[in-house]
Amino acid sequence: MINLTILSGDANEYFTQLDGKAGINIIAALENNQEIDDDIFTKTTVILANPDLLAPVVYRFTHLKWVQSTWAGAKPLIDVMPRSIPLTGIKGVFGVQMREYVFAYLLHFSRQIDKMTSLQKEKNWLQPTCSTLAGQTIGIMGTGAIGIEVAKMAKAFGMKVRGFATTQKPSPFLDEQYTLKEKLAFCEGLDALVCLLPHTAHTENIIDAECMSALPEHAVFINAGRGQCVDISALESALTAHKLRAAVLDVFVDEPLPQNSLLWTLPNAHITQHTAAVSRPKDIVDIFLENHERFCQNTALNYQIDLTKGY
Amino acid sequence: MINLTILSGDANEYFTQLDGKAGINIIAALENNQEIDDDIFTKTTVILANPDLLAPVVYRFTHLKWVQSTWAGAKPLIDVMPRSIPLTGIKGVFGVQMREYVFAYLLHFSRQIDKMTSLQKEKNWLQPTCSTLAGQTIGIMGTGAIGIEVAKMAKAFGMKVRGFATTQKPSPFLDEQYTLKEKLAFCEGLDALVCLLPHTAHTENIIDAECMSALPEHAVFINAGRGQCVDISALESALTAHKLRAAVLDVFVDEPLPQNSLLWTLPNAHITQHTAAVSRPKDIVDIFLENHERFCQNTALNYQIDLTKGY
Repeated sequence: MINLTILSGDANEYFTQLDGKAGINIIAALENNQEIDDDIFTKTTVILANPDLLAPVVYRFTHLKWVQSTWAGAKPLIDVMPRSIPLTGIKGVFGVQMREYVFAYLLHFSRQIDKMTSLQKEKNWLQPTCSTLAGQTIGIMGTGAIGIEVAKMAKAFGMKVRGFATTQKPSPFLDEQYTLKEKLAFCEGLDALVCLLPHTAHTENIIDAECMSALPEHAVFINAGRGQCVDISALESALTAHKLRAAVLDVFVDEPLPQNSLLWTLPNAHITQHTAAVSRPKDIVDIFLENHERFCQNTALNYQIDLTKGY
Repeated sequence: MINLTILSGDANEYFTQLDGKAGINIIAALENNQEIDDDIFTKTTVILANPDLLAPVVYRFTHLKWVQSTWAGAKPLIDVMPRSIPLTGIKGVFGVQMREYVFAYLLHFSRQIDKMTSLQKEKNWLQPTCSTLAGQTIGIMGTGAIGIEVAKMAKAFGMKVRGFATTQKPSPFLDEQYTLKEKLAFCEGLDALVCLLPHTAHTENIIDAECMSALPEHAVFINAGRGQCVDISALESALTAHKLRAAVLDVFVDEPLPQNSLLWTLPNAHITQHTAAVSRPKDIVDIFLENHERFCQNTALNYQIDLTKGY
């Protein structure tokens, strides 16, 4: 039997889904880290938490045996977690959402859905010519688990797939692979460019004016990695000058995107409010329950974060 | 060397793509069937034609050896073609377009693209909850080559797939199969219903008020089969009463869809002007050239239509 504390803005939803599950004794379901009873700090053996909320108080839990983060990573916890306690993340659930997000927009453009909508308003039977993704080339920046899910779907649609990453692992879903030094060759001739990169010293502003020039004018750019990866003024210029067909932007350096950002009003920019792939309690509960079973059987936990490497 | 006559609204495009190909002597590229020289009727050995245009004049060609239709079928030619002459259709190219059409719209709804667009107009950072196709159930009416392409893509997205057809062939892409008699059981609980059925005595108005009631209110209905398969007044009632989330309609009994049709203005009806899967000259030329090679080598032609069965 574990003594579980839940610490998350979605604490009530987690409580509903976990209450009564065999082997789990929920001792607290908290939406914030204020006024936590001493009792909870001493009795809790397992925590399911939003790392932002847990980080300031984690040192007070005296009998911790395992922490499950509700995020893919757990950056705020990396430096404050006791090294001896396993910290696990969420994986696998973002790839499914991300592949649907990317293909929703690529198909939105190729099937001319906006044009169809405006024709319908005019009761106009004009038949626009649609292109097919099959035969087109997609470039994916960031070829970790999420990037490979997108690549797999691109192959299912009959696309050619280029991967771009610091480290290259062979994958049946990547037709070509490029290193960071081959950025322009990677961009040249792409029909779609999808950025899924994390923010690091190497990726800051990596998508710059040079990249935009290397892309064909009919190309669609999707950023669902990090806002810092894109030189926004270069992107705004490219969109304004119609050097790109469209940009679909999920992430920004400042979120919410400031009211005075030009991106809100550019007709070929599509803003998606950081919704591409989100932590949904249901998915997280599934991963937590699977890990709980492993914890009870004393076998290796899934998606354990290496506290030394930080991911 | 074949003496080829092209008879199609796209005759000029076919001429450009076929002119100068080895073994092909183009003797005419005609956009209509008016005033065809006698010379052409006697010299032509092979025709690439729109069946509507060829049917009224086919009897005048005296040295025909093969007819390639620019359509999947060739209904207008079935009763007027000499039985001894092979008639071939177009296959395989529609499946690719259809799977992209179907998933463009399913993802359009699940990713809430209309909502995203209206939030952007308000510069609103509200984050709508998107659902995933993964785990949902799709029902496909008509499980021929095109239906199986849609099913295959549904499996790639992690959906459960029900097939509905007169004849059932086992397929790794269909989790369950239903006969025409099991219509309501087939519809019950579907998240998406896609009709790809041809118009026959058995399929006329097959999607009726009973079907609409069996579908959940959040279901999306896509008709890219034939207009005759749907009881339109039942569909209009269901959409008006929000018994369905949305309908995406590509085909209608009368095309163009009449100006007075309610469907043009229903906010949850999406009209796509019979563009889901179209004969594109490039695709047809590829099939024609492959068949031309087979014709010269005297081997069986691809996609030959059985004039007795009519398909």
